[in-house]
Amino acid sequence: MSDLAIIRDGGMLIRDGKIDIVGSSAEIEKNATDCEIIDAGGRVVLPGFVDAHAHPVFAGNRLDDFDRRAKGETYEQIAAAGGGIWSTVEKTRAASEADLLNQATKHANWFLKGGTTTVEAKSGYGLTVEDEVKILRVIRRLNEETSIEFVPTFLGAHAVPREWRQSEYVDLVINEMLPRVAAEKLAEFCDVFCEHGYFDVEQSRRILAAGKKLGLKLRMHADQLTNSGGAKLAGELNATTADHLEQTEEEGIAAMRSAGVQPVLLPGSVYALGSKRYPRAREMIDAGLAVVIATDFNPGSSPTTSMPMILSLACTHMKMSPAEAITTSTINAAYSLNRGDKIGSLEPGKLANFSIFDCEDYRELAYWFGFPQTHSVYVRGERVVDKN
Amino acid sequence: MSDLAIIRDGGMLIRDGKIDIVGSSAEIEKNATDCEIIDAGGRVVLPGFVDAHAHPVFAGNRLDDFDRRAKGETYEQIAAAGGGIWSTVEKTRAASEADLLNQATKHANWFLKGGTTTVEAKSGYGLTVEDEVKILRVIRRLNEETSIEFVPTFLGAHAVPREWRQSEYVDLVINEMLPRVAAEKLAEFCDVFCEHGYFDVEQSRRILAAGKKLGLKLRMHADQLTNSGGAKLAGELNATTADHLEQTEEEGIAAMRSAGVQPVLLPGSVYALGSKRYPRAREMIDAGLAVVIATDFNPGSSPTTSMPMILSLACTHMKMSPAEAITTSTINAAYSLNRGDKIGSLEPGKLANFSIFDCEDYRELAYWFGFPQTHSVYVRGERVVDKN
Repeated sequence: MSDLAIIRDGGMLIRDGKIDIVGSSAEIEKNATDCEIIDAGGRVVLPGFVDAHAHPVFAGNRLDDFDRRAKGETYEQIAAAGGGIWSTVEKTRAASEADLLNQATKHANWFLKGGTTTVEAKSGYGLTVEDEVKILRVIRRLNEETSIEFVPTFLGAHAVPREWRQSEYVDLVINEMLPRVAAEKLAEFCDVFCEHGYFDVEQSRRILAAGKKLGLKLRMHADQLTNSGGAKLAGELNATTADHLEQTEEEGIAAMRSAGVQPVLLPGSVYALGSKRYPRAREMIDAGLAVVIATDFNPGSSPTTSMPMILSLACTHMKMSPAEAITTSTINAAYSLNRGDKIGSLEPGKLANFSIFDCEDYRELAYWFGFPQTHSVYVRGERVVDKN
Repeated sequence: MSDLAIIRDGGMLIRDGKIDIVGSSAEIEKNATDCEIIDAGGRVVLPGFVDAHAHPVFAGNRLDDFDRRAKGETYEQIAAAGGGIWSTVEKTRAASEADLLNQATKHANWFLKGGTTTVEAKSGYGLTVEDEVKILRVIRRLNEETSIEFVPTFLGAHAVPREWRQSEYVDLVINEMLPRVAAEKLAEFCDVFCEHGYFDVEQSRRILAAGKKLGLKLRMHADQLTNSGGAKLAGELNATTADHLEQTEEEGIAAMRSAGVQPVLLPGSVYALGSKRYPRAREMIDAGLAVVIATDFNPGSSPTTSMPMILSLACTHMKMSPAEAITTSTINAAYSLNRGDKIGSLEPGKLANFSIFDCEDYRELAYWFGFPQTHSVYVRGERVVDKN
């Protein structure tokens, strides 16, 4: 994970939106006839970031919660004041597909400006059959109308809505939502928020098993607030990823390792919640796990689309090296989205998704913080962000 | 500090680089004839940020230190490997005035893109008479050649250079550097790094008293790593500011209060060093101190020029409200630089230094993090940054 295979004075030949040749500039120039030449001017060129955990489709924001949290109010006080996830669910239910698409398109442009070209996109702010389907349709339309590739994940089990008893809502997810999502091919992954007060291990197991049976791959929100056995369940079900893991200890790490589960670490939400407990990235890397880092972009606990910010957090607060931060946000993340053969590195045959940064050294991406150094961004060989 | 005096659907009339009238759009339009009209489109308009603690003139970067720190090496190990402040001093000494100006101009553009229009600028990477003067001359030239106003601070007592014994270096600062700086009018403030292993309280007192005698106002690096009595000394000397204060407790807060010292809090360096001990912002605000927040921009411990990032840190990690974060980074900061009558708020008679942000609510500045929402920036009424 520390070997980035950097090519100094390197180049790529791009043909039909894909990378044809990668090598030294001299080698590329030999093969380049009748080409448009883009001179990166000695800058750092990286694969487009792959953001493997995000909630980009929602209505409104959570500014009031933010203000209250800054003043020291607890999650419970904020929820009692009408905040928390429920406020986003109400606004998202009330929003039309067009409104959601409009706001999510703004978010897509933010992602692009930070150098991200692929984003996992979860539903989960609808929590009715029709509203979850609405969100997943918005994700499909984002794929048609923006330059980013969004990978859809069904997260009907994000929270239990107020109008349902918990066990009945689990039945609704399994018996109505999942079959509909699968039939309309609206998602590639099924996710669940496995946590005390949300969905316990047994309910999570039922939901994920049902998703798997319908052909969906599995991701999980695991061990964020308590070490509730989420990582172990991810291992048991051979989930593709277990995400968050702030509270995961040795046993969970061992379970993920045995089953080849990829940990997706989300330092942005730890930061934004003002918490000090980051997941044990070093132990997971040392255990040989193919760690991923992602934004967890959402209005409540992680209002950032910036992967460079996540690289900064990974290095300053999870003791990852800048090289590891790059690997975990590109090629490792691509594999976690089942796209390791298409994106995540600059290799022949892969999509020409890449960014140019105003830096001379890749480590600058994580070093300077708070303002992305993006120079320009390309998707399938087309420039979609220009020097800002 | 929580009352921002927001004008909804507001406007300003600008004349000769200054604010002439502030009020409702309707009122402004009545008075505006033969004017260029800039429509902010319902976006948030704020005074340009005033960054009251920065080290913007240096050569090179500290990427190797960053890499080593991420791998868990201590400050001592990094210094032994040739890193730390000494590596920046060596590069800065070796750099020409033109090279330093060139690099600092790049930094100036970063500041502007985050909405900052005034920046305090410390010397302190030269540590010889000629090299300190060289840095202060670069700061003077930055004032002539960029749109930002830089406020120069002499920080010859940033560290003891290797070639000097500590007491002899203190004498050099007092007997040679300070008189030269004062004679050439190269600085408005005198600063000292009061800390075990740098300059103790007695040495700091001597240096600052000498600076005061020469007509310089005083700032101090105080109580960053240990509670060494820095804040108390700032009170004793009636310093304008005491900066850092991560370790300051009740006694230091009381001393600052009695003497009207402004605390300048620097959460960017706490963050970037991976530390968890932030200064006691709430207690200082509750004690009635006119708190300031700033970037501490420098290559070693705070590689950020982004004031919006500092607002985010203030709200998420120092429990300041978004409104307090705005006040402390604008009007309070302006007073700490002796410019409270000219900048820091949008009032008639003040310079027309302001920024437009792609937000509908000022709280978004601190809420979304890692990517400034800057739309455009104006200095003395002239647009210097355009929609990026």
